[in-house]
Amino acid sequence: MKNISILGVTGSVGTQTLDVVRKSGEEIKIIGVTANSSIEKMKEIIDEFKPKYVGMMDIESAKNIKNYCISNNLDIVVLEGMDGLKTIASLDEIEMVVTSIVGMIGLVPTLCAIEAGKDIALANKETLVVAGELVMNKARDMGAKILPVDSEHSAIFQALSGYTEKDIKKIILTASGGPFRGKDTKYLKKVTVAEALKHPKWKMGKKISIDSATLMNKGLEVIEAHFLFNCDYDNIEVVVHPQSIIHSMVEYKDASIIAQLGSADMRLPIQYAINYPERKAEVANSINFYEVGSLTFERPDFETFKCLKLAFKAGRKGGLTPTVLNGANEEAVALLLEEKIQFLQVAEIIEECMEYFKEDATKELNLNNILELDEKVRKYIRSIYN
Amino acid sequence: MKNISILGVTGSVGTQTLDVVRKSGEEIKIIGVTANSSIEKMKEIIDEFKPKYVGMMDIESAKNIKNYCISNNLDIVVLEGMDGLKTIASLDEIEMVVTSIVGMIGLVPTLCAIEAGKDIALANKETLVVAGELVMNKARDMGAKILPVDSEHSAIFQALSGYTEKDIKKIILTASGGPFRGKDTKYLKKVTVAEALKHPKWKMGKKISIDSATLMNKGLEVIEAHFLFNCDYDNIEVVVHPQSIIHSMVEYKDASIIAQLGSADMRLPIQYAINYPERKAEVANSINFYEVGSLTFERPDFETFKCLKLAFKAGRKGGLTPTVLNGANEEAVALLLEEKIQFLQVAEIIEECMEYFKEDATKELNLNNILELDEKVRKYIRSIYN
Repeated sequence: MKNISILGVTGSVGTQTLDVVRKSGEEIKIIGVTANSSIEKMKEIIDEFKPKYVGMMDIESAKNIKNYCISNNLDIVVLEGMDGLKTIASLDEIEMVVTSIVGMIGLVPTLCAIEAGKDIALANKETLVVAGELVMNKARDMGAKILPVDSEHSAIFQALSGYTEKDIKKIILTASGGPFRGKDTKYLKKVTVAEALKHPKWKMGKKISIDSATLMNKGLEVIEAHFLFNCDYDNIEVVVHPQSIIHSMVEYKDASIIAQLGSADMRLPIQYAINYPERKAEVANSINFYEVGSLTFERPDFETFKCLKLAFKAGRKGGLTPTVLNGANEEAVALLLEEKIQFLQVAEIIEECMEYFKEDATKELNLNNILELDEKVRKYIRSIYN
Repeated sequence: MKNISILGVTGSVGTQTLDVVRKSGEEIKIIGVTANSSIEKMKEIIDEFKPKYVGMMDIESAKNIKNYCISNNLDIVVLEGMDGLKTIASLDEIEMVVTSIVGMIGLVPTLCAIEAGKDIALANKETLVVAGELVMNKARDMGAKILPVDSEHSAIFQALSGYTEKDIKKIILTASGGPFRGKDTKYLKKVTVAEALKHPKWKMGKKISIDSATLMNKGLEVIEAHFLFNCDYDNIEVVVHPQSIIHSMVEYKDASIIAQLGSADMRLPIQYAINYPERKAEVANSINFYEVGSLTFERPDFETFKCLKLAFKAGRKGGLTPTVLNGANEEAVALLLEEKIQFLQVAEIIEECMEYFKEDATKELNLNNILELDEKVRKYIRSIYN
């Protein structure tokens, strides 16, 4: 039996993690869960999974949940704010934390969990983007395993079974291309938020759906792959593969390629991360190759989808530049979702910030500087576009 | 450094093995080589690789090579016939035997090598088809590794890295479909040997090229996969994949699929088998996914290509039935290459033999009975069609 905490349990990956736990019988026990402010969903989760600890980032929501527990006679510790998240990420009785929280906010509790020696099922890609070096070094020091939950990184991780980073010639990261694949800048000028949210293959949260439409999602994944697999940016190739059947590949130095394929179902990589190195009975549907049609591959359009180019650039610059990239992106996507900016402005804002914060990005890479610069970038954007 | 013997060194896989050795620098040393009767090729190999032992199956050819060694003052032991092959397969100073010999004739020296505890880089698929149980049991007893060289089985073997047979849900064996993919029986009635020899993707020897055209090659591979990976016939699926980029796949019990991809170059699986578990620098070209176009998949046509159906049937019957299948196929292919029968008669002859030798096939599975029944099947066919 494995005891786990799930950060961001009411989100898309969080609820799919619950489904994996549901199907695992007695093997996985949920000890702690956290959310921001989704109180109704959290009450359902409390009723079904009876965790020992619940954390709500939002203080009012925490009060609400506390009252719910009292009036239902539930023996649950309810915590609030970032301190609550940190406590739940590092409980003595857990072995693993599933970080299905979205955005930079996942960084501090993830580092906390690693410091406490917990294995991480990592779905919070922003953590590695802004603090890849810190996270991987700390995980090495603490002997904590970082198990990727992103379908692409899970694919690479699976394709690396039996081999190590030193055997890699190239990582081939596949991308569905998002809802605007093949479109040009003229077309993108006029797209709406609703169109950007319609991902052709994956059902996901809003932030990652927009990131998929701009290809920033792939850009963040490139940086993530760089840190997870200690792979040079020159050896990471993005290939557009609209069918989303091949989830990514590793080319080894002998030119042999190992790929992982499967249905577009996040429960597959979640289950793999939680049970690693064991494989458990299926939660997802099998692929039927007689019905799969054809698998195709295209070169990504770096000019139309500038975010991907900017991510490579930020990754190569290193230091705090990915923090600027990520902070600017998070804020720009929020503005887009609030319909305060247009689709193409997301890339423009990020590019502008990377230029504007060039000097700040050369400071030492440490947690304080990351949090500070992230804040600064967001404030700057809000001061202009709000 | 690894010392090896190569059986069938002048054939297609044999000469490609030489190329792998050439590119491996000092790491692989060829101690023994054997061939049937290709004396000119053998002389070139002697000059370049200076083996200590040379075996010629054909006695006249052995004499010729002996004289060549004497007149060139070469300190080489030249052996003849099956005894020569057996000696060279089990030399004290070698660790591995590459069995690139084609047909049933590879069985006895392969067993000899395993008995001597040598690892086998197995390109001789007929060995596993007729004696899979004997071979795998003996390998287990002797602690000898069986490393598949067939591109499909190498793919499966690579896809299994880090996992074991018990994690397999299904083996997906890809097939190019051969030169007559999509054709019907009416068309196949009129095809010539020259057309059957033109494989669309792989440059191979004549026997295996014909086997690819009839799909018997895939049928033999199904039986081979059954023994190599201890996989039930119900869990082996053949998928036609005309581009020959995905060389085969393993579906695990969690519905995750691991595939091996690469260019259609036998040197890749040969190199992998010889250096296993290490991967060495590339001998083959990389795949460029921007240029690969689309990968497609089809259901094989079991009615038009009866050989595949017969192979599944023989595999499921087990015992000596695969010996009948294989012996009949080898003889029928020889007759086809001699232009004594038509293309479609290959399957007819095999089906007829499987019926005619039904009783014989129920005898105990041991080496003597295999060799005896193989002989009997061939004589029967020759008595009718020669």
